Amino acid sequence: MQVLDWDRALTLLSPHNYALLSTQEASGRSNLMGLGWWTIVSWSPPQVVVSVGQGQHSRHCLDEVPEFVLNFPSVSQAKGAWLCGTVSGRDGDKFQMAGFKPLASTQVRPPRVDGCTVAFECRVSQRLVTGDHVLYLADIVAISGNPDAPMHLYSIHYNKLVGLDSELNVTDAPGRE
Amino acid sequence: MQVLDWDRALTLLSPHNYALLSTQEASGRSNLMGLGWWTIVSWSPPQVVVSVGQGQHSRHCLDEVPEFVLNFPSVSQAKGAWLCGTVSGRDGDKFQMAGFKPLASTQVRPPRVDGCTVAFECRVSQRLVTGDHVLYLADIVAISGNPDAPMHLYSIHYNKLVGLDSELNVTDAPGRE
Repeated sequence: MQVLDWDRALTLLSPHNYALLSTQEASGRSNLMGLGWWTIVSWSPPQVVVSVGQGQHSRHCLDEVPEFVLNFPSVSQAKGAWLCGTVSGRDGDKFQMAGFKPLASTQVRPPRVDGCTVAFECRVSQRLVTGDHVLYLADIVAISGNPDAPMHLYSIHYNKLVGLDSELNVTDAPGRE
Repeated sequence: MQVLDWDRALTLLSPHNYALLSTQEASGRSNLMGLGWWTIVSWSPPQVVVSVGQGQHSRHCLDEVPEFVLNFPSVSQAKGAWLCGTVSGRDGDKFQMAGFKPLASTQVRPPRVDGCTVAFECRVSQRLVTGDHVLYLADIVAISGNPDAPMHLYSIHYNKLVGLDSELNVTDAPGRE
């Protein structure tokens, strides 16, 4: 066993499951953010946590409207999904920039990303400040998706997205490289 | 977009990054547990969360000794890694049952799993009860591993482990199937 730096470890631990976090300002304007730091944390009730940078626009939205959708974009949405991870919602309408159609959610105010593989509609119950992020614990209150688009996106050390499904089919997708 | 049940969603969201959580009782006896519910939550300082079932022996250990190692087993360790996810530490020495060599950590009391791809040595700073699990927020205080064993394990809906690396090479590994 040798000492590893943080960067090397993150590459070795790739691929990381990649999601789009859909949030909403109090004004009703919605936002999307690329997100790799999430996990399920309870079977019953189904709950997730997401970790959002303290300075990010989505953090501001979540503190105004404590609801979100965790969308897992399908491989055909890779280009827009990558864009959502690289520009700020303060700069304009990310749904429009990414070419995504917002679809009204069934239980929460922020919209879903139409066409994604899976969408978890979530309601925040607790908030915990970490080093430089804020962790939101949330109940999953509705689950929908497109099982006919089973390949969604994973990141390689946050530098590149690839398509991958549970049958382990793999497709290269756009990224920084 | 159609309504999905929890099971179907978890399959569609596979593969999930799989780790072994190494903990220690106050008596000094160590334990290992298969774990899919973890994520990084802060860049600086580097922090992770892990979610552990309220009834699990590892939860008991973490409440006695709030330190752990998050080990990412390499593909050659798949059989033992699978065993660690399916039996309880109350039933015996999991390192021995799994055929793993415990390696003293540099900063925390629980040992590392020798030969794993990456090991995060972690110190718990906060504890948050979720629905049926307990979430532990921890600082990563040391990182080590074997970059020459870059393929580690992912689960397919917690039913099967597969080997996968950041170059997207894939190997089937033992599992329930």
